Amino acid sequence: MDEVRLIEVKQDIHADNERAAEELRARLADTKTFLLNLMSSPGAGKTTTILKTLEQMPESLEVGVLEADIDSMVDAERIASAGISAIQLRTGGFCHLDAAMVSKGLDALDLDALDLVIIENVGNLVCPAEFDTGAVRNAMILSVPEGDDKPLKYPLMFTVCDVLLVNKIDYMELSDFDMGVMLERVERLNPEIEIFEISAKTGWGVKEWAAWLSREVAGFIAD
Amino acid sequence: MDEVRLIEVKQDIHADNERAAEELRARLADTKTFLLNLMSSPGAGKTTTILKTLEQMPESLEVGVLEADIDSMVDAERIASAGISAIQLRTGGFCHLDAAMVSKGLDALDLDALDLVIIENVGNLVCPAEFDTGAVRNAMILSVPEGDDKPLKYPLMFTVCDVLLVNKIDYMELSDFDMGVMLERVERLNPEIEIFEISAKTGWGVKEWAAWLSREVAGFIAD
Repeated sequence: MDEVRLIEVKQDIHADNERAAEELRARLADTKTFLLNLMSSPGAGKTTTILKTLEQMPESLEVGVLEADIDSMVDAERIASAGISAIQLRTGGFCHLDAAMVSKGLDALDLDALDLVIIENVGNLVCPAEFDTGAVRNAMILSVPEGDDKPLKYPLMFTVCDVLLVNKIDYMELSDFDMGVMLERVERLNPEIEIFEISAKTGWGVKEWAAWLSREVAGFIAD
Repeated sequence: MDEVRLIEVKQDIHADNERAAEELRARLADTKTFLLNLMSSPGAGKTTTILKTLEQMPESLEVGVLEADIDSMVDAERIASAGISAIQLRTGGFCHLDAAMVSKGLDALDLDALDLVIIENVGNLVCPAEFDTGAVRNAMILSVPEGDDKPLKYPLMFTVCDVLLVNKIDYMELSDFDMGVMLERVERLNPEIEIFEISAKTGWGVKEWAAWLSREVAGFIAD
C-alpha cells in the first residue's frame, strides 16, 4: 500500500482564483500533466469510478490522485491501497477546492513524472462548480438514485463540466429516473458536454469513458 | 394548487448568526410554531420525504414548507401541488441557509396560524451543517445509495442533527451498504441521535418517524 500523505489546506482569501488557475494550467502544460477535476454529490461514486477508470487505462500512464475531504482520509487510503500515489487534501470544513489549494497539493507530487492527476473534489454539487481549480477538464458524476431533476437544481455544475458520467446505471430498474428527460435537461444547459453511462460497481460502460479520457490525455501530452 | 411564492435571499454578512437564530427561536416560541430543518445530499429524497411525512401527520396540524434552492422552483411546486403552503427561497448560488434567510422566508407565512414549518435546506452535507437556522430540531436524510461511509466524511452534519432518516431502504438489496457499520459510526459521533429507517418512495417506516415528529410538535405547542 502506498503511503498516504495528508496536507491541511485552508482557504486563502485569493483575490484572483482565475489567475491562480491559469498559472497552474501553464505549469501543467510545462510538465505535460493532464489534470482532471472530478466532482459530484456525496456518495455518487467518485472513488470507485476513479479506481475502475484507472484499471481500464494504459498501464504505461503515470497517475496520481488528489483526494479532497473535510475531515477523513478513507478515500485516499482506498486509492493508495490500489498502488496509486494519493495525496489527501483536508479542507477543514471548506466545501470546495480552489486553484491555490490544488497547486499546494500538486507540490507534493512529482509532476514531471506524472501524465495524469485526478482531483476528487469535495462531495458537493454547489460550491466546487464556482471555483476553477486549474484543471484541464472538469468532469462530474450524477448517480441514478439522485434523480433526473439535478440539472434543474444545480445548473452551474452541469454547465462548467466537459464530461458527465451517469453512474449507478445498475439502479435504473429500481428507480423512476428518466434518462431521456435528464439528457434533455443537460443538453439545454450544455450542448457540448460528453456523456457516458456507467456502473462503476460492475464496471459496465467504464471502458468507453476510460478510452475517451486516455485519448484526451494522449492528445495533451503530445501537444 | 397553492401559489408558490419566490423570495430571493442573499447572504447578509451577519456577524452574529447565532444571535439571529436565538431571536428566531424566541419568535417561534411566541407563535407556537415548530421549525424543522431538513438537510441532506442532493437527491437523498428530501421533497418526497416531506410529502410522505405530512400524509402521516394529524390533519389538524397547520403546516408550511420553506424550500431552499439555488436556482429552481421544482420542489416548491411539488409541495404546493399537494396543497401545502410553500415558499421558495432562491439562494442565488449560496450553498446553505442562515437564520436571517430563514427569518425572511418565514415573514411570508402567517406563523400565528402554523403549527409546523419544515425547511428543505440546500442539498449539501457540508455548508448547511455550519449554520444554525433557528430551527427547533435538525434532521438529516442519508440515503442508502450514498454509502455507509458518510458519517466519516461529513461528521459535523451527523453531529448537529437530532434525527437521522436512513432513506431508500428499498435499495438495500442492490447495495453493499452495511447498516450496522453506519450506525456504529453515527453513534460514535452522536449517541443521542434518533434514527429511523424509511423508504419515502414506498412509505415504509414513515409512520414511525411521523409519529415521533408529531409528538415533538405537540410537546412544543403545549409548552
